[in-house]
Amino acid sequence: MPGSTFGTLFRVTNFGESHGPAIGCVIDGCPPGLALSEADIQGDLDRRRPGTSRHVTQRNEPDAVEILSGVYEGLTTGTPIALLIRNTDQRSKDYGNILDTFRPGHADYTYWRKYGLRDPRGGGRSSARLTAPMVAAGAVAKKWLRERHGTTFIGWMSQLGEIAIPNEDESQIPLNPFFAPSASVIPELEAYMDALRHAGDSCGARIEVQARGVPDGLGAPLFDKLDADIAYAMMGINAVKGVEIGAGFGCVTQRGSEHGDELTPGGFRSNHSGGVLGGISTGQDLRVSIAIKPTSSIRTPRASVTRAGEATTVQTLGRHDPCVGIRATPIAEAMLALVLVDHVLLDRAQCADVELPWPPLPPLSA
Amino acid sequence: MPGSTFGTLFRVTNFGESHGPAIGCVIDGCPPGLALSEADIQGDLDRRRPGTSRHVTQRNEPDAVEILSGVYEGLTTGTPIALLIRNTDQRSKDYGNILDTFRPGHADYTYWRKYGLRDPRGGGRSSARLTAPMVAAGAVAKKWLRERHGTTFIGWMSQLGEIAIPNEDESQIPLNPFFAPSASVIPELEAYMDALRHAGDSCGARIEVQARGVPDGLGAPLFDKLDADIAYAMMGINAVKGVEIGAGFGCVTQRGSEHGDELTPGGFRSNHSGGVLGGISTGQDLRVSIAIKPTSSIRTPRASVTRAGEATTVQTLGRHDPCVGIRATPIAEAMLALVLVDHVLLDRAQCADVELPWPPLPPLSA
Amino acid sequence: MPGSTFGTLFRVTNFGESHGPAIGCVIDGCPPGLALSEADIQGDLDRRRPGTSRHVTQRNEPDAVEILSGVYEGLTTGTPIALLIRNTDQRSKDYGNILDTFRPGHADYTYWRKYGLRDPRGGGRSSARLTAPMVAAGAVAKKWLRERHGTTFIGWMSQLGEIAIPNEDESQIPLNPFFAPSASVIPELEAYMDALRHAGDSCGARIEVQARGVPDGLGAPLFDKLDADIAYAMMGINAVKGVEIGAGFGCVTQRGSEHGDELTPGGFRSNHSGGVLGGISTGQDLRVSIAIKPTSSIRTPRASVTRAGEATTVQTLGRHDPCVGIRATPIAEAMLALVLVDHVLLDRAQCADVELPWPPLPPLSA
Amino acid sequence: MPGSTFGTLFRVTNFGESHGPAIGCVIDGCPPGLALSEADIQGDLDRRRPGTSRHVTQRNEPDAVEILSGVYEGLTTGTPIALLIRNTDQRSKDYGNILDTFRPGHADYTYWRKYGLRDPRGGGRSSARLTAPMVAAGAVAKKWLRERHGTTFIGWMSQLGEIAIPNEDESQIPLNPFFAPSASVIPELEAYMDALRHAGDSCGARIEVQARGVPDGLGAPLFDKLDADIAYAMMGINAVKGVEIGAGFGCVTQRGSEHGDELTPGGFRSNHSGGVLGGISTGQDLRVSIAIKPTSSIRTPRASVTRAGEATTVQTLGRHDPCVGIRATPIAEAMLALVLVDHVLLDRAQCADVELPWPPLPPLSA
Repeated sequence: MPGSTFGTLFRVTNFGESHGPAIGCVIDGCPPGLALSEADIQGDLDRRRPGTSRHVTQRNEPDAVEILSGVYEGLTTGTPIALLIRNTDQRSKDYGNILDTFRPGHADYTYWRKYGLRDPRGGGRSSARLTAPMVAAGAVAKKWLRERHGTTFIGWMSQLGEIAIPNEDESQIPLNPFFAPSASVIPELEAYMDALRHAGDSCGARIEVQARGVPDGLGAPLFDKLDADIAYAMMGINAVKGVEIGAGFGCVTQRGSEHGDELTPGGFRSNHSGGVLGGISTGQDLRVSIAIKPTSSIRTPRASVTRAGEATTVQTLGRHDPCVGIRATPIAEAMLALVLVDHVLLDRAQCADVELPWPPLPPLSA
Repeated sequence: MPGSTFGTLFRVTNFGESHGPAIGCVIDGCPPGLALSEADIQGDLDRRRPGTSRHVTQRNEPDAVEILSGVYEGLTTGTPIALLIRNTDQRSKDYGNILDTFRPGHADYTYWRKYGLRDPRGGGRSSARLTAPMVAAGAVAKKWLRERHGTTFIGWMSQLGEIAIPNEDESQIPLNPFFAPSASVIPELEAYMDALRHAGDSCGARIEVQARGVPDGLGAPLFDKLDADIAYAMMGINAVKGVEIGAGFGCVTQRGSEHGDELTPGGFRSNHSGGVLGGISTGQDLRVSIAIKPTSSIRTPRASVTRAGEATTVQTLGRHDPCVGIRATPIAEAMLALVLVDHVLLDRAQCADVELPWPPLPPLSA
Repeated sequence: MPGSTFGTLFRVTNFGESHGPAIGCVIDGCPPGLALSEADIQGDLDRRRPGTSRHVTQRNEPDAVEILSGVYEGLTTGTPIALLIRNTDQRSKDYGNILDTFRPGHADYTYWRKYGLRDPRGGGRSSARLTAPMVAAGAVAKKWLRERHGTTFIGWMSQLGEIAIPNEDESQIPLNPFFAPSASVIPELEAYMDALRHAGDSCGARIEVQARGVPDGLGAPLFDKLDADIAYAMMGINAVKGVEIGAGFGCVTQRGSEHGDELTPGGFRSNHSGGVLGGISTGQDLRVSIAIKPTSSIRTPRASVTRAGEATTVQTLGRHDPCVGIRATPIAEAMLALVLVDHVLLDRAQCADVELPWPPLPPLSA
Repeated sequence: MPGSTFGTLFRVTNFGESHGPAIGCVIDGCPPGLALSEADIQGDLDRRRPGTSRHVTQRNEPDAVEILSGVYEGLTTGTPIALLIRNTDQRSKDYGNILDTFRPGHADYTYWRKYGLRDPRGGGRSSARLTAPMVAAGAVAKKWLRERHGTTFIGWMSQLGEIAIPNEDESQIPLNPFFAPSASVIPELEAYMDALRHAGDSCGARIEVQARGVPDGLGAPLFDKLDADIAYAMMGINAVKGVEIGAGFGCVTQRGSEHGDELTPGGFRSNHSGGVLGGISTGQDLRVSIAIKPTSSIRTPRASVTRAGEATTVQTLGRHDPCVGIRATPIAEAMLALVLVDHVLLDRAQCADVELPWPPLPPLSA
């Protein structure tokens, strides 16, 4: 597929470039009758938007969303919901030198090899700015899942460069610019970022994201497994290089007698599976962890080649996030919500008539 | 989607259950004119098939493949290639007790919750036996990629439980039952597996898989990224809980000045990207690493519930792999080949007319 | 798409060639819990199979279907249902001369132009024999729709060459080889066919097909309209050159005041719409009419070219239907059922929560 | 699928409602390097737009298109092309009474049955106004096909109500408001329409559309046949009730010896096939004919029911086309172009390596 549509039954088609006139998306397949206004979407956009602390890019975009279709008298009609976000603070001249060379670690080179030309302004189509429409679409998915199924989403940063961040207090997450579930670690994170910025360098991060209150029975055997679709969604976020579900790479050194989550009438005894067995949800929390690479656009000079094929050195000025992981939490939540809403719709297409003798096991036994 | 079709333009539709009459697949979209016979496919099936060493399940399946369509006078015709593998060594009585309870860590529970019923014989549809048709389809993809583009695939085990396996000598891989690229580590692996089997337990593994000689420019922005599709394919393999591309989770502690692979006219200076930037191939080796959880079917008794919802204990007899990772290498290769062939076809659909002034950079500079 | 899969949520992937070892299909997405055996499928296959009267091809194929997967203890499991039909009465030598030339009106030429090679035996992939697996899949769809929604399907021949066939008595349809809803017209049809066969020529036909007891609200705005999907399904049947819904081409000379079906609390007053308005089902009968062209394989000599590009004359021997329309009725029913089951599943994915104050209007007012 | 996306590799996702703030579409998969500006698109939009003669709706919409993405320095970049058309002349009060009742022959009833609610303003999503974005997308497809393959598109009205319109002079088509290929018939058409409008009624029409200079080998066996995809595209246009390819329903009374187009080294001797055999293009002109039903929104009072289920009478005021067929020609051309561009891309995905000994036969022999 050409690559700009996500999902099967709750389909999001994304468009735009970092410095074009607008970015946005079309959501097709949203169930009718959901109360929806711009305000329902703006909250998550604000969590992701740039310019909100000194640790992220200073580009100032209000990211105000306009609903162009699919809502009538405050309710979704079941027809496509088009969302438009105008770009307002482009400074394309900052990127002039990128046109003729390729930033190491950046998509500059591969876009050019694929298409023979590219929009270099602000990274064009490869910019993380294109996650904004996904956050907007995810907000719609989240609202429907919450109202219909009681499903909620939560994400946080669990590591910044070398600094592990403990999950001490989830209520702290919205209170700091790092989405860190700990108040005590903030001074260390701020000092770390300040040093990095002064060094003209960038760092990686690890993000956790979870869905809670997940219906069981979601996913399909073989392909379209719930965990495979989650891996696809997460690896598709800009700069992600690794994805884990549940125990993740830790399962390599586990024994079967340890890894397999025991079942009791009162619930599961553990959640090493991360909420998915055989590609299908167990009803436990979905537990996902992702690795985000350091930003490619740095002030440190690096070796590269020109479009003419000659050796050169590239040094990126302009406004950039020294750690793209800092704004990644709401993006990961949105993508997880988009995977889940699609599977809920798929499941009721095929299995709406299934009747079972007892309700799902509780996520964890008391 | 219902979940049994993989790929967009080179589409593989899989069918069958572990103990049904047959398993197989239909490949739709293979280019015409490829020389193809059962012998081209049987080799990879033999690498994956059970019963070939004491470290894997003793089920004895020849996994002989029959081509039912799509080949005329030794050449593919461009129409669907149906591949059929008859099951021959089912012992369904071994699994009798599984019908009424659920193995911890296994899909028994989730299939039942989704469908309201399930085929319990040998795991039914959730059995890793269903990877055999994918290995067969992958063999067709590999052949076409090798002949048309010179692309080759290689995989190996890099860790078995706690034992790391160094990549000392790739020529050793086909010479031992572990797909280990080292002769010296084999005695240790064998002792480890023997102890595990005697303990009635199972362990996890880590597998590396690479594609070499990859065309550049494959993949799409935003979704259908090459790395996202790889993550989807890998996480969809039975028992996989984590996927890394290139530096993977190691990127969290890297700096941007270290992670971004520098370009020179003589080639890239490193391959932390794993061959993908912005979702599009660089022409470097694709480097993928996956975590495989320990087998759920073990002799050690575990707590579970019955279909009636009552507490019970489950202990799995029958014939099982104590480490499903041992036979996973050819599966991972096949899935990587299936991702790649699809992207080659997608790319030439959209970008066949693109002309560039110089050929791809070499994978690594001299 | 490569072209061998039909449907989105109830997906049928077809494989095989006329004279290969086997033909068949894989049904993915069938809801679980449907009682299903070969006997449920064989009936429709027998209605379509060749050799049952002197007016159709004398090839003798039992078309016995084998279920390879997806059914456990007599119930569908929700996993893929693979259906296999072995070919048994191939006489490929009859078609020897077709290899080097192209029958006018046949796919010989276009397959060769597309693929550069083709399987000429019995028409290979382009043979109407490949409709058998669709009839088999359609039988599964019909059973589910009948049991779940009370929907039934009926088709008949309404014109054979110049002879219009009135719908006098639907109970006659299964009692004659033409699927004609009239006993009195049979002698005329038989004489017509006998003369045609002696002349070494072929003729066209018109087939009507209807679904009755159709849920309302099926279909989607803009694309995936129910009538558009029906047109796609029907035009995809071998030899079909025209499709009408409801009034069809007759609407060109209607007035709006005549065409629009009035609504009353007791039901609709007419059904010019054919059961679809704005692409969505009204709950009235779906009324479809298709034109089937005369068979291309005839004994009459015709001008053509050879593969070398030289002028030649082609005359087709072998065993052929002098009117492919005669066996088309069960095929059209099956395709209509496949369209409908897919839309029922799609509809409950998106609109399962919709509540309305009154039930669907009756199909026609008393 | 939810129903707002058309195409596989050249994908168009449509959004908007008749009286919402905007309508538009996102084109994903357009090859890179095509010169494109708003002016390339506006021409076809102007051919379709309302208010240009007294025979069509008097709604005054400039239908000015804005390109939001996917074009950089005048060339397509291969990334999504978003097209936006603001609605400017909504008069929603004209439609007030439609909210509580259902126009016979209109989608009012079925939308409500499907979604439980609907946007009644100007027909909402079911309005033919939503064809404007398809015309815009079709203009992009046409331009690429013309520049790359020399393919051109032409359509005309061949019948208005009872008046057959002969194809006497194609150069007349752009010179009259009916797209009629005849100057002499215009006075009769004008008188016919004036009488109809005064009577408060509407009529149907028949439209022909052709593609010329079509590559051969396009289409796929079984499904995704070129003619099946054309039937899908055409039946999906608002108000279409019938589709014919080539001889269409005329084939029912043809003999095989007449219908099958003979081949000679100098070209085909006829084109009854309409340019498609076995679902694959022959290289001859694609010949398509469609039936368009009379407009449902008429001043003549008709019986209907209210949302409360009670009998009522409905009479539609507001501004409407008395024959929607009059503006249908550019829409049919656009849809045919969208089908064709998708198949060109699909074909080169699978069959780019096919080599044949001689070029396509000429469309018709001299």
